[in-house]
Amino acid sequence: MKTLIKLDLDKKPWEQDGLIHNRWHPDLPMVAMVKPGDEFRVECMDWTGGQIGNNDSANDVRDVDLTQVHYLSGPIGVEGAEPGDLMVVEILDVGTLDDYQWGFNGLFAKENGGGFLTDHYPEARKSIWDFHGIYTTSRHIPNVKFAGIMHPGLIGCLPSRELLENWNAREAALIATDPDRVPALALPPNPQSAVMGRLTGEAAVAAAAEGARTVPPRDHGGNCDIKNLTKGSKVFFPVYVKDGGLSMGDLHFSQGDGEITFCGAIEMAGYLDIKVSLIKEGVKKYGIKNPIFQPSPLSPAYRDYLIFEGISVDEQGKQHYLDVHVAYRQACLNAIEYLKKFGYSGAQALSILGTAPVEGHISGIVDIPNACATLWLPTEIFDFDLKPNADGPSKIITGTTDMAFTS
Amino acid sequence: MKTLIKLDLDKKPWEQDGLIHNRWHPDLPMVAMVKPGDEFRVECMDWTGGQIGNNDSANDVRDVDLTQVHYLSGPIGVEGAEPGDLMVVEILDVGTLDDYQWGFNGLFAKENGGGFLTDHYPEARKSIWDFHGIYTTSRHIPNVKFAGIMHPGLIGCLPSRELLENWNAREAALIATDPDRVPALALPPNPQSAVMGRLTGEAAVAAAAEGARTVPPRDHGGNCDIKNLTKGSKVFFPVYVKDGGLSMGDLHFSQGDGEITFCGAIEMAGYLDIKVSLIKEGVKKYGIKNPIFQPSPLSPAYRDYLIFEGISVDEQGKQHYLDVHVAYRQACLNAIEYLKKFGYSGAQALSILGTAPVEGHISGIVDIPNACATLWLPTEIFDFDLKPNADGPSKIITGTTDMAFTS
Amino acid sequence: MKTLIKLDLDKKPWEQDGLIHNRWHPDLPMVAMVKPGDEFRVECMDWTGGQIGNNDSANDVRDVDLTQVHYLSGPIGVEGAEPGDLMVVEILDVGTLDDYQWGFNGLFAKENGGGFLTDHYPEARKSIWDFHGIYTTSRHIPNVKFAGIMHPGLIGCLPSRELLENWNAREAALIATDPDRVPALALPPNPQSAVMGRLTGEAAVAAAAEGARTVPPRDHGGNCDIKNLTKGSKVFFPVYVKDGGLSMGDLHFSQGDGEITFCGAIEMAGYLDIKVSLIKEGVKKYGIKNPIFQPSPLSPAYRDYLIFEGISVDEQGKQHYLDVHVAYRQACLNAIEYLKKFGYSGAQALSILGTAPVEGHISGIVDIPNACATLWLPTEIFDFDLKPNADGPSKIITGTTDMAFTS
Amino acid sequence: MKTLIKLDLDKKPWEQDGLIHNRWHPDLPMVAMVKPGDEFRVECMDWTGGQIGNNDSANDVRDVDLTQVHYLSGPIGVEGAEPGDLMVVEILDVGTLDDYQWGFNGLFAKENGGGFLTDHYPEARKSIWDFHGIYTTSRHIPNVKFAGIMHPGLIGCLPSRELLENWNAREAALIATDPDRVPALALPPNPQSAVMGRLTGEAAVAAAAEGARTVPPRDHGGNCDIKNLTKGSKVFFPVYVKDGGLSMGDLHFSQGDGEITFCGAIEMAGYLDIKVSLIKEGVKKYGIKNPIFQPSPLSPAYRDYLIFEGISVDEQGKQHYLDVHVAYRQACLNAIEYLKKFGYSGAQALSILGTAPVEGHISGIVDIPNACATLWLPTEIFDFDLKPNADGPSKIITGTTDMAFTS
Repeated sequence: MKTLIKLDLDKKPWEQDGLIHNRWHPDLPMVAMVKPGDEFRVECMDWTGGQIGNNDSANDVRDVDLTQVHYLSGPIGVEGAEPGDLMVVEILDVGTLDDYQWGFNGLFAKENGGGFLTDHYPEARKSIWDFHGIYTTSRHIPNVKFAGIMHPGLIGCLPSRELLENWNAREAALIATDPDRVPALALPPNPQSAVMGRLTGEAAVAAAAEGARTVPPRDHGGNCDIKNLTKGSKVFFPVYVKDGGLSMGDLHFSQGDGEITFCGAIEMAGYLDIKVSLIKEGVKKYGIKNPIFQPSPLSPAYRDYLIFEGISVDEQGKQHYLDVHVAYRQACLNAIEYLKKFGYSGAQALSILGTAPVEGHISGIVDIPNACATLWLPTEIFDFDLKPNADGPSKIITGTTDMAFTS
Repeated sequence: MKTLIKLDLDKKPWEQDGLIHNRWHPDLPMVAMVKPGDEFRVECMDWTGGQIGNNDSANDVRDVDLTQVHYLSGPIGVEGAEPGDLMVVEILDVGTLDDYQWGFNGLFAKENGGGFLTDHYPEARKSIWDFHGIYTTSRHIPNVKFAGIMHPGLIGCLPSRELLENWNAREAALIATDPDRVPALALPPNPQSAVMGRLTGEAAVAAAAEGARTVPPRDHGGNCDIKNLTKGSKVFFPVYVKDGGLSMGDLHFSQGDGEITFCGAIEMAGYLDIKVSLIKEGVKKYGIKNPIFQPSPLSPAYRDYLIFEGISVDEQGKQHYLDVHVAYRQACLNAIEYLKKFGYSGAQALSILGTAPVEGHISGIVDIPNACATLWLPTEIFDFDLKPNADGPSKIITGTTDMAFTS
Repeated sequence: MKTLIKLDLDKKPWEQDGLIHNRWHPDLPMVAMVKPGDEFRVECMDWTGGQIGNNDSANDVRDVDLTQVHYLSGPIGVEGAEPGDLMVVEILDVGTLDDYQWGFNGLFAKENGGGFLTDHYPEARKSIWDFHGIYTTSRHIPNVKFAGIMHPGLIGCLPSRELLENWNAREAALIATDPDRVPALALPPNPQSAVMGRLTGEAAVAAAAEGARTVPPRDHGGNCDIKNLTKGSKVFFPVYVKDGGLSMGDLHFSQGDGEITFCGAIEMAGYLDIKVSLIKEGVKKYGIKNPIFQPSPLSPAYRDYLIFEGISVDEQGKQHYLDVHVAYRQACLNAIEYLKKFGYSGAQALSILGTAPVEGHISGIVDIPNACATLWLPTEIFDFDLKPNADGPSKIITGTTDMAFTS
Repeated sequence: MKTLIKLDLDKKPWEQDGLIHNRWHPDLPMVAMVKPGDEFRVECMDWTGGQIGNNDSANDVRDVDLTQVHYLSGPIGVEGAEPGDLMVVEILDVGTLDDYQWGFNGLFAKENGGGFLTDHYPEARKSIWDFHGIYTTSRHIPNVKFAGIMHPGLIGCLPSRELLENWNAREAALIATDPDRVPALALPPNPQSAVMGRLTGEAAVAAAAEGARTVPPRDHGGNCDIKNLTKGSKVFFPVYVKDGGLSMGDLHFSQGDGEITFCGAIEMAGYLDIKVSLIKEGVKKYGIKNPIFQPSPLSPAYRDYLIFEGISVDEQGKQHYLDVHVAYRQACLNAIEYLKKFGYSGAQALSILGTAPVEGHISGIVDIPNACATLWLPTEIFDFDLKPNADGPSKIITGTTDMAFTS
């Protein structure tokens, strides 16, 4: 497999010969051109560009500079790609790098990032996960081992100018409804820490001022954090600019549906092997708005789940109207309470839900006023029997192990 | 298998010897008592109690009396069950009745029921599904055939008085925020059409006045519409009143995650074979708030999906904050547009998403401001190749078949 | 579903209005005619016609009259079927009968039937299995529970005269190589106990004298005992006579690959719902010799197996040449030894391998002189942890339960 | 992952610093020692040591020197391992080498190797398979693409002297029954081309004279060619000599059950990442004769199969007694005839069955006189619809592509 984008992980993201960018903008020059049918390798830094270390302190998570994220490799041009086409991306392989056989998961501090359960877990915490071939374990979370579903959290094509302006306008309108909120409702363009690939000088400054942040998933895909975009899957991306401009990064060794810890999945550096082709005028032919994809024949097949229900009544007992976000939060909180009965700390339980291949299903969404969401926790990942029985749970985790704290 | 609750489907729900009720109330008398370890059969009417016919007019869907729903069989008492216990319910089998080898799916009129996409599909429509052993097909939706995942849409234990009051209070508070909304935000207690089982006289009148409607899923489970509660699964229900009081109904031959058509899944009459046992004080032992369950080893294993993404930007382009409801709606609308390219009408496509074993995943829920939801459509249920290719879609469905209209 | 063949299980097989036969012969008259596209139900007796009882003695297994087996329902004619066509049979459903919620498994005595491990287990033994919806358990074999893969052990079309003569000739040649062997090498035509359906008088006597026994699978399918021919599967049978003549029986609630106990799987009475159609001249079009089939999307998906290897060196240490029969026997014996460490008797362990959904794989068949076969035992069917660990096995089965003996 | 055994693939097997051997003998010195709990990487040559090239001629297959095979990496000692222990080997990963992104499959000439269908396909032929991440395709076999289940074909511990003598004796007895057979019934010790690792001088000569050939699977495992020993699986090997002495090789990118082409699967060079531990006295504790193993949660999950039946009546119509070898051969021949209807040559079809993840099941093995074997061919690996329909097959493969011939 030819390596199209080769990085030096001892260097900073902005020292990688322009192969990396961290904003979406139509003016970013292609760093390489390929032909339809080509297969090639793309190396990627972890999403923070190396800010988080393999150690036992959560200080780096607490102090992370989020204006930098996400560092993406690309954009790559495909000869003949034009707006309105579909770029077909086969993810042939996803792998780790020889000297980076570990990843991290964290809880952001509420003041710097936050997350799905930040009101319950407002302090920065961290777990480090070691890779053992297809499996992973963490010295911070005992009695758990699972096979990862490696995937890129973030992948997509460059937006057109028109699409970028649409993004910026609609997100600005949302921010304007509560501009002082912590965490913020959305992240507007921010030239601080912007890395604009091979764009230089005035053009780079101008693009940095209006380039979209990489955090949310959007029409083009982007940071979808879909755990099933793993090796063997095939994605159909809308093309918005000449040559397409495919960029990718934010590799995960494993993630649960929802990526509820935000920082994040098991985050890692690594590589993608991909094959690209085109469906000319595919957007119109198939009526495509967002990317669509086909899953892989090769993903860990867990069968034995314990499933937690949640409804859209919040922690304070307030009724919400068909709110799946609230319902899924309840399902997650229910699972955390359950896991605590076996001895896990709440933060450990939360980290398990963020990293292991849990599934989050939208089960019922029409039975007013309650949405029903379900969290599917694979029981095979634990080395003890997690299922309920007449005797009640045993306190299995009795040691002093916990996720790393700040100091 | 001993039949504990036997119905006569030629009679009305209120003529079934008190075996049926359609409101939740702690005073409902047990219609039968069983022992832990017992196995027995419970027959159930369809959720509307026979209001919808096997014909080619949607008038009955348009005119359905929703004050009647859902007709439940029970409550069944388990000897020794006390508040704080977990009632363990093994769903040993779910089946159809010999003379009722069909089910219905519909779109409610916006003025009478509505639904997930009611702004897009405001008219009443109906499809009838014939059963062929494990498979189903519809004369109203060609080129589709699938194996059902039969399950009860609704099952749970009677609430305590305290829990009932909590339900009524929190839902009333929601209604008060927009009392004239169509469709309503929630359904308050309504004595009209209330069927109170074996409760009679003054007690029945009083209970009907405060009994909770059966529509939403709540703390006790209830109308969860979880498509995976199929034969072979095992559910752990909190017990709130002496003897437990297990009721069930709203049987589905098949349903997609979300039951997005509201009327509903493939709705049917049928039976459940169940086994009950108890975990004494299980609520406290395991920290249970909502029911939890284990899935079945026996469910249709579709592998080849086409997956549609949706983000929380609505049809008008407005940005919402991490709203999974909006995101899943977009994913569904994207799938409908795609299916229309092959010749399906929008209503047909919507009915497929409501009835077939589609999965709805909460894929990303932390990447502000966009939630990302995915709709997984199994491609094997179509008798043509649904996947994208370079040539574009073929218009397969060329006939005049469509879902039943109102007249 | 219309019942095409309805039996009275209180009567003997030969008292069923000619709906049953137990020999293969081209002259058997059709008991019913259907059209391509028809769906219908066929009821079946258990393969012995009711010789084995739901009790705790193995005397009936010891004394079984094997000249009677197998009792088949049919033959059913399909309008337009001609020799050279493929008859497409969709198995829409397989079910139990209300008053027969149990099945049997046995070890035949070596002198009367024998079996795969008859040299190791020469005595008649029996286990009774109770059905609980999709699950089964046995009072004779504790700590085991599994979901059945219900299927017909025997199904196929009537042979032509030419084919019948070929069968009789080739099997007679085999018998002639060791005519006095116990058990016999094969079973020649035997008019004793022959039930010839609606064939009467001289014709019946003549056909009984040459009709093929139903025991072996042959070119037409027949007694294939393929555990995966379950509800939802689709089989393509060669047609040899006008109208086809489809017969079926020997229903199993569950069986392991190989049906190594011979008597047999979990044997039961029950029904099949099937749909038939034709591929005209399909035998030539597709080059078909034996039936082919497609499996069901709905079958119990066990994931966690313990796999036993066997090679073609027999119990006496003698080397055989690529003999899969010997290799699979070793794999089975290895599994039995393993199960005995947990407290099962050898007969119980053997019965588990014959009834549970174990898989038997031909793993390696070219590495002279040893074939390698593997037996896949699903660990989820046990209610204790069967997997090896550093501490060694616990003796879980400590009671006096065992398979029924003869008296 | 620390690389314990590092090879130079530009050199010959016997130039690898003694890290490679091709005979089994108890005197082979350990090439490295590890501790229980250690994880490490082992590189392996392809089984022929580089005799087969990535080209379009089958001459190398015709002329292969089979006295050389199989080249194994090891033996590796585990501290504390003693005879009677079980060595637990977790296969953490299996991978390809950067510069060797291809593998080969061949049919041996009947005079030099032969194989399962050598009477039908007696000429040497070859197909080359290119790797694309998890997928493989062959320029010699169009319209087929599948995800590999990478695994070691051969792995096991050194035999004791007593065990070695047993092997040699029983195999010699078999050979003696037909010493001049072509192909031979078994392969006796042969010093020609023997590579004895780090054994030198007289000791090496003596060991080569009696060392067991590596071709057959035996009591210790060895060349089992079990396609499911893939990354994520866990094997329990009996230990026969001090330190155990684990050796491995014969890596396959993919293989069908039976490895019916003998040369072989998709053969490749590559690496294994493994973790070792011990169960002291595990052989006795668990009653182990042959290795047992647990499969991986991560293997390609094909769902849609076309299944071919075969019975133990051979190509000449001769009846065999419960002979699974004959039955599986018929199932394979049936599948080949079917594939030819779509335009494949017989050799291409055979190569597909040898390389793709087909399953071979021992379906019925007690229904005298016919064994029933089934071959499960996954239909998803073809880019056209392989299933039967009323119109008959289309001749899809119309080009002149074929497997490489000899010249």
